[in-house]
Amino acid sequence: MDAVRRIERTLSQALAGAGRPGAPPGLGRAMHHAVFPRGARIRPRLCLAVASACGEDAPGAAEAAAAAIELLHCASLAHDDLPCFDDADRRRGRMTVHRAFGEQLAVLAGDALIVLAFQTLAEGAATVPARLGPLALVVAHAVGMPGGIAAGQAWECEPEIDLAVYQRAKTGSLFAAATMAGAVASGAAGAPWRAVGERIGEAYQVADDIRDVVGSAAELGKPVQQDAAHGRPNAVQALGLDGAIARLLRLAREAVEAVPRCPGEAALRGLILSEARRLLPAGMAMQAA
Amino acid sequence: MDAVRRIERTLSQALAGAGRPGAPPGLGRAMHHAVFPRGARIRPRLCLAVASACGEDAPGAAEAAAAAIELLHCASLAHDDLPCFDDADRRRGRMTVHRAFGEQLAVLAGDALIVLAFQTLAEGAATVPARLGPLALVVAHAVGMPGGIAAGQAWECEPEIDLAVYQRAKTGSLFAAATMAGAVASGAAGAPWRAVGERIGEAYQVADDIRDVVGSAAELGKPVQQDAAHGRPNAVQALGLDGAIARLLRLAREAVEAVPRCPGEAALRGLILSEARRLLPAGMAMQAA
Repeated sequence: MDAVRRIERTLSQALAGAGRPGAPPGLGRAMHHAVFPRGARIRPRLCLAVASACGEDAPGAAEAAAAAIELLHCASLAHDDLPCFDDADRRRGRMTVHRAFGEQLAVLAGDALIVLAFQTLAEGAATVPARLGPLALVVAHAVGMPGGIAAGQAWECEPEIDLAVYQRAKTGSLFAAATMAGAVASGAAGAPWRAVGERIGEAYQVADDIRDVVGSAAELGKPVQQDAAHGRPNAVQALGLDGAIARLLRLAREAVEAVPRCPGEAALRGLILSEARRLLPAGMAMQAA
Repeated sequence: MDAVRRIERTLSQALAGAGRPGAPPGLGRAMHHAVFPRGARIRPRLCLAVASACGEDAPGAAEAAAAAIELLHCASLAHDDLPCFDDADRRRGRMTVHRAFGEQLAVLAGDALIVLAFQTLAEGAATVPARLGPLALVVAHAVGMPGGIAAGQAWECEPEIDLAVYQRAKTGSLFAAATMAGAVASGAAGAPWRAVGERIGEAYQVADDIRDVVGSAAELGKPVQQDAAHGRPNAVQALGLDGAIARLLRLAREAVEAVPRCPGEAALRGLILSEARRLLPAGMAMQAA
């Protein structure tokens, strides 16, 4: 089964309990709306790719790790879109959770998805219980304090902000967790995989900046030119378009070089480079190839 | 060391990372504000009491379970107090998290406390890794979907609501988790302890109803007569004051009768009864003793 189908199946199974009779139906629908239909699923695909490169001897644990990371990503989007933060109307081509279900259910959907992430891990790692603790810690560090997604978002509330610290927490942390959790789920050490995830996360951030400037709202499913509108830093503004593309490809090469020795390292390196090209908007992917 | 000191120490250690240099300081302070100074700590004390009754062979796991449950309770209060829910100004005698730190940090503090709960479990159960999965599942079921705190809160958004289902999810679930997690942390089965926690949770709900009617704002640190103001059901309204007190004491006796065979069952039974009397406002405790 290909990676995307494994991810969607695991996410559907994880969310099944929230949609059963006996659960409050509005919250079940809001959680489903936050997770489906799928976005790029880039983090869980990365997680499974690393798990496979490390010899994946516990597929259920790897799938649970991948799903947990995607659930946490979806939770953070639901909360980031809230009126008190970005007050965003659209995401993935349709209404944000609070626009579709109200602010109360958007808050609760995020909360319940965070819980579901750890529940999914605990269920998926049942066959390899010694890996659950390290997996839960990798994931918790990526989303909590002092350096996870919530910390990254909280830097937006501070009068002074170190941009590198902010982006590492807000974006890099969950990419690092994707690679580390993939390794840990397969019984390998997580720490050597941090740099791979961090470089890919930076590349993804640059790709996002490029799309924000040159993409179309129809293609992205959300408004473009938002960085300029909100006075946020953008790699295209700082480096120019060619400079930003060069930076993206350099980050991908650095990620490739950081891949530790493992059974499937050659295939993984190829995958990282082809994904980096896919991250560029259509016309530019040709140019960079 | 007595239970309260063990709980406060474990909570302080859990929150230490959020207060370190390098973490966004506002979020660290907001999380601390949500957890300290202490409230009654009734759920973690219950958790430790059950762990002790079950022969507590892994104190670190029991303390982590107790702290995780309290962190989740504090997270739920921070989110319940938000403007989109209760829009509450005061809690535990001072400002609610969003009044003190703003809505953004109140949302993030709740999120980060949920994550910290599972992180604390994973760290605390390191010496007994086989217990982490069952512990994480007990705790996740108590706060997520379909029957945990978030589900309970989400019932408030539904046009029709079964009061028993609502209260079981909103209040009972975390009490049930407190007793079950205490048992699991000590290597015992969790399921036989569910009824004990549920009855104590119901007793606590009745005690809350009584305090809402006859307590003073100064004594409780939050406004009274809120059930009548918000049209919420209240046991005193339904049963009269004497009826509500009788119900509270009957629930305590049912909890006592539900205690499974375990090394410390006699002491635990005595503790449950004395705590039930303490739950009544000062004058009435004498009356009921």
